[in-house]
Formats: sequence, C-alpha cells, structure tokens
Amino acid sequence: MDLRQYILEKTAAAQATLPVMAALSTDVKNKTLMAMADALDAGCASILQANQKDLAMHPDATAALRRRLALNDANVKSIAQSLRDIAALPDPVGSIESLGKRPLGFELQRMRVPIGVIGAIFESRPNVVVEIAGLILKSGNACVLRGGKEALETNKAIVAVLQGALQSTKVPLVYLQFIDITDHDAVKVLCEDRDHVQLMIPRGGTTLIEAVRAAAKMPVLSHNKGICHVYVDDGADLDMALKILVNAKAQNPSVCNSAETFLIAASVAPRLLPPLIQQLDEKHVEVRGCGQTCKIVPHGTIPAAEEDWSTEYLDLIVSVKVVDSIDQAIAHIAKYSTHHSDAIVTNNAEHAERFVREVDSAAVLVNASTRLVDGGVFGLGAEVGISTDRTYDRGPMGVEALTVRKYVVLGNGQIRE
Amino acid sequence: MDLRQYILEKTAAAQATLPVMAALSTDVKNKTLMAMADALDAGCASILQANQKDLAMHPDATAALRRRLALNDANVKSIAQSLRDIAALPDPVGSIESLGKRPLGFELQRMRVPIGVIGAIFESRPNVVVEIAGLILKSGNACVLRGGKEALETNKAIVAVLQGALQSTKVPLVYLQFIDITDHDAVKVLCEDRDHVQLMIPRGGTTLIEAVRAAAKMPVLSHNKGICHVYVDDGADLDMALKILVNAKAQNPSVCNSAETFLIAASVAPRLLPPLIQQLDEKHVEVRGCGQTCKIVPHGTIPAAEEDWSTEYLDLIVSVKVVDSIDQAIAHIAKYSTHHSDAIVTNNAEHAERFVREVDSAAVLVNASTRLVDGGVFGLGAEVGISTDRTYDRGPMGVEALTVRKYVVLGNGQIRE
Repeated sequence: MDLRQYILEKTAAAQATLPVMAALSTDVKNKTLMAMADALDAGCASILQANQKDLAMHPDATAALRRRLALNDANVKSIAQSLRDIAALPDPVGSIESLGKRPLGFELQRMRVPIGVIGAIFESRPNVVVEIAGLILKSGNACVLRGGKEALETNKAIVAVLQGALQSTKVPLVYLQFIDITDHDAVKVLCEDRDHVQLMIPRGGTTLIEAVRAAAKMPVLSHNKGICHVYVDDGADLDMALKILVNAKAQNPSVCNSAETFLIAASVAPRLLPPLIQQLDEKHVEVRGCGQTCKIVPHGTIPAAEEDWSTEYLDLIVSVKVVDSIDQAIAHIAKYSTHHSDAIVTNNAEHAERFVREVDSAAVLVNASTRLVDGGVFGLGAEVGISTDRTYDRGPMGVEALTVRKYVVLGNGQIRE
Repeated sequence: MDLRQYILEKTAAAQATLPVMAALSTDVKNKTLMAMADALDAGCASILQANQKDLAMHPDATAALRRRLALNDANVKSIAQSLRDIAALPDPVGSIESLGKRPLGFELQRMRVPIGVIGAIFESRPNVVVEIAGLILKSGNACVLRGGKEALETNKAIVAVLQGALQSTKVPLVYLQFIDITDHDAVKVLCEDRDHVQLMIPRGGTTLIEAVRAAAKMPVLSHNKGICHVYVDDGADLDMALKILVNAKAQNPSVCNSAETFLIAASVAPRLLPPLIQQLDEKHVEVRGCGQTCKIVPHGTIPAAEEDWSTEYLDLIVSVKVVDSIDQAIAHIAKYSTHHSDAIVTNNAEHAERFVREVDSAAVLVNASTRLVDGGVFGLGAEVGISTDRTYDRGPMGVEALTVRKYVVLGNGQIRE
C-alpha cells in the first residue's frame, strides 16, 4: 500500500469526525471516558500479552527503555484511572466568556472550541496513547497517533481496546486514528498534511522534537529540554531550602522538571552547603561546584566546567554555584535557563515578586520544588505535554490548552458605517 | 554588507531589549505612546514629503495601490490617533489570574507576559508600521518590521519620527527595528532566524502570507482569505436583513470581512430577493445567483457557476443561493467558508444558538454585519491582524493577543512525593 495514501486516509477520516466531536455533550464524553477506562481494566490481559511480545521482540533494549516500556496490572489500572480523572475535569468546549456590550450596542463573547485534528508522535511509554486519546476526546478534537516501534504491539492492543469501548457510544470510532507503520517517512507525511492536521504534538526526546519541528507545515506544540534552577536567597529558611533542593534534584532525576543547577546566595552558602552536599551524597548525587562551592566543601564536590551550566543531566548530577545577590541569580538563569521551570527559596517578599516577574520561564516557583510543574499536580488532569513555546499558553498543557477561542457577536441589526 | 549579518544584527538587538521591554511600567509605555503620537503630528511634513517621493518613484502603480499608499494631513492625524487609542487600552502585561489553592497547599496563578521578538512583514499601507509599533510597545514585546518597497521612503520617515520620540524616554530605541532592504531574501533570512524571532506576522495578500508560511521556522500568525457568508433565516426581520446584507457586501468590498455569499431561506426569498437585488444594483453590485435566485429575479442576476461559491471576490460582486433550511445553510458554510466571519439574520433563538455553536469560524455573528469583525469595532484597539489559524486565539488580534500566560507557583515548602 502507498504510505502517503494510507496516512491521508487516516487524517481525512479524523477530520470528517470534527463536527460530531465538537457537538458532543459533556455527558456523552464523560460516559465514554468511563467506558474506555472500564474496557482497559477488562482488557488488561490482552494488553499485557502484547506488552510481553514487544519486550520479547527487543531483547537488546536498554534497562531504561525496558522500564519505560514494561507494563503490569498496576500500570494498566493506573492508566485506566487517568481516563476517569479526565472525565472528572470541567469541559471547556462551548464555555462562554462575555466581553460585555460594545459601543455599537452588540454583545461580544468568546467561546471555547476544539482546535481540530491533532497529530501526536510519541516514544515508548504506552500510557501516552491513553492519555492523549482521553484528552482529545474531552476537548472535542480528533487525533492521529503514532507511537514508537518498541511499543507497537502494546499500542495496537490499547487502541483496539479503546475503539472496542467506543462501539456502543455516540463518539465516532475513527476520531482516534492510529498509524501502525513505524517507518520514519510516516511522520514526514503526517507533518506535511496541513490540509487535515491543525497541530502536531511530538512527545519525547530532543531528536524527535527537532525532527517534527523541521518537517511540520503546521504549528508544533512541544517542550525544549529543561535546565531548571533553584535559587536559595539571602535569609531563606534553610530547612525548607534543603528539602526543596534535594527533592528538585533527586526525587526523579530523569524528567524535564527536575533541577540541574542550584544557585546559592553567598551569605547562606557556608551553612547550607555542608548539609546539602551530605544529603545529596546519601542520594548518590554527584556535585559539580563553582570555585567557592568546592572551597566550602572540598570533599564530595568536583569542579564544574563552563559547559556544566548549560547541561541537562537528566541524571544524579547537579551543578552548584554561589552567587552574590538575587541579581546575579536572575542573570545566570536568563543566560542558561531553557525557560521551563525555575524556583526561588526566600523569605523576602520583594525578592519573591522580582523573581516571579523577571524570570522568563513557563513556570516560576516561590518556595516550592520544580518537580511540582505537572498537569496532575496543578489540577489540570493529564497533560499532553509541557510547552516551552511562547505562542501558546506556556507550561503544562491539559484539556483547556487543546481548545481555542472564537468570537461571537450578538446584535440586533448592527452594521458598519 | 552581508544581508544575513545585517538581519541578524537587527534581530539580536531587538532580542536584547526584551528584559527591559517586559519590565516597563504601564505609565512609561502610555506616556511613550503619547509622545510618539505627538511626534507624528509634529513630523507630518517630513512624512508627507517622503510619501510624495514614494508616489513619484512608482508612477506606474495601479490606482488601488496608490490609494493604499498615498497619505495626507488627515491620514497622518488619524495614524497618530491610533497610538493614543492604544495608550488608552488596558495593559495586559503582568496581569494575574488566580487558579486558587491546589491540593498540596500552594497557590497557582497565571501571569500574562510578552511573547518576545515579533517579525512583521507588511505591504503598502504605511499606517501598519505605526499600529504594529504601538501594539508591540504596549504588549512589552520587540519587533523587526519589513514593509513593501513602494512605501519604503514613507516607512523610513515614520520610523525615524517614532525613534526620535523614543530618545527622551525609558523605552529602548532599538525595540523597533526596521529593515530597509526590500530584497526578497531579507524576508527569507528573517523567517529562518528561530533563535531570535518568536513569531512572524505577515500582513498582506495571499502570496505574501503563503511565502512567509513556507519559509518560517517559527510560528506564523496570519489570516486566510475571507469567504464570509450571511444567512437569512426563515422568519427573519427582512428590513434588518436588507440593511445587513447590503452593508456586509457593499460598504467596503475590498476587505477580508466583507461578505461574498448570501444564503437565503426559501420561505423568505420571494419577498427578500427583489428589493435586495434592486438595492445591490443601486450600489453597482453584480449578483451571481443560483437557479432559484435567477428564477425569482430574472433581470439583474446572472447564473452562478460552481466556482463562485469558493471565490473571494473582494469586489462589487456577490453570489446568492436559496437554501431549504438552516441545516443546508450550515452545511454550505462548512463546505465553502474560510472560517473567517459568518453571520445569521434570524428571529429564532434556537436557530441563533445552533448557528453560533455549529459554524466553525473565527467570528460568528447573529443579526449583525460581518464588517463588524474588527479590532477597533470590538473595542480591542488596533489589531495586528485577524487570525484564521486555529492554535491561537481566533479573530481580531489586539494587545492581549501579543501576550502569553506563564504559571506562577506560590508555595511554603511544597515538594513532590
């Protein structure tokens, strides 16, 4: 079969469902999400069987890849639960914000509507197909999904279970399109189909994101890598600082919202650094310090090179720099941050305000760990990703971020003179 | 001089102003806008002189082009006034929306912040440079502007006057960059500079927009052509309908929000079409009708071809179709509309509601002319354009549309468990 034709049939079929998807009632969408969740629970065995097949077909996969890929009963239950969580979220579609009467006498409103067909390219984690299918349904869109080759059998089994659940509902089965060709050209064809696909969402590593950005003829929603900072201010509560620093680095170092660099005010460094580096050592975190850091704690630190300040380790490594002032901290963040998530620990309200206004990141935090930057923790439900682009909403993207506002004019005969 | 280097110096200089631009107070921005307006009034003679030079250099320009290009005293006054209008608008930058306390106990907020460097490519109308400069300043962004070659001297004179006004303010002069090279390659270099330019806004005809879309490595905010519809429903107030139809077509047929197709419910067609076509004839509008239209009014109509329903005339021509029902009207609009602005004239509340929800356009109007879809009429002030894209806010894009929301977390020690 012709690859291009195969893809275009899927995108056109997804597009054809849009008027129906946009008009679905909240009740129908929520009942369908619950039915999909139940079907995942009921179909757990078939999904785990397919997952075993995937694992068997990739015996040389790295341990990290196997960890992302492998499913068990508890994982499937938790994936099913994510759909129930999406059902519990408010439905943004059709919600109206009034801008009031305009001088000519008409009422102006803005109404939230779906975006259209979303192309989602993701890598090995099989929970992504379920989360995206759920968010797309709740937001009244349609989607064409393409997962990684290592999870092909698992993803096919999940899609079959979800589409099975749609059979007895008012939701068109084909709103959820899955591309089961893992050829790289499939992504390219999808990225060029501006007639049918309104937005591409690559969810994975830098290579995937850059490939989609380079090929896409439509907007791309994606995140850059996360070089996240925690700055501990002059006069900060050092117990709180310790707790936040260790959490931001060590709780899950392999994710984009974990911290890569700590900036420590010179006034607190002598008291903070010794216990900090001891606690990091207990968590097996390697510390690469600036000259002053290494001077204060000579054992347990190695000197940082210039490139450390612009490295996303995604590992149990952290760079630490002593700074003179909040100004130097903000300047360092402006230079090295990837504008994902940056935090300050402070007791100074004026400094907190300055940090919030001047640090240009998708999420700015005061007295909290960068690890909180997450759709679930923010109460947005599952997320399609964390955007570091600047032309959409920034940060975690949930259901509302998959809608857009149109204008509604309610007049009684107004014309333009 | 090397073109690429020339452009990159401008984009980098614009980017370097972003922290200052983002931190400007509303008061400083408004005073600067007023000073820029005063400077335009004071510099009117130099601008008109440059405009005469442009007109003299393009003696073979079409009448339409000369009309868009030529300025007089009153035009310059009105352009200056547009800056005062922008000063009067609310400042979105730094505005905070609270999402309340989250379960972990931190407060979640969203704060509006500027987008960054905007690249704006526009054609011959010299008012655009002033409107964009004003909107970009008010929204705390920076910009790199590139106008059409026919208006080069006028645009240079305007930019010189505006930058002169910035000399004695806290606004960095170089937030406003103007490319005075009219070589097409300048646009290409700008479109590829993803490191410095966050958003491209092409403002002009389809050829310009498509060229920018094809070349741009960053998001593009633009509008498609406007094939706008007015549907007159069964039971509509026919006096109101006549007034709206004639206004939507004839008040200014050369703009994107003018109507190109009228859809008339069969029940009202026999009474509405004769006076409508007479009034259109008085405005020199050519009517291309469906079979039934031509049957009801044989004189003054010519038969429409299939391609008429998908033609943006931008001229004193309209296509007219008699439809059986609102369903047929909505289906016709779904098939042929460019999703810009579509209107219904009705006395039926249920039909109005259906039309608003089911017609998928940037602006949907009830009992009002499509010509109202405009930043000024909507009370948004000047607009950078009317977006028909689906991943930004749709419709007229004013100051707020040049900002984006970041997340702010205010905690007291929260970490992720």
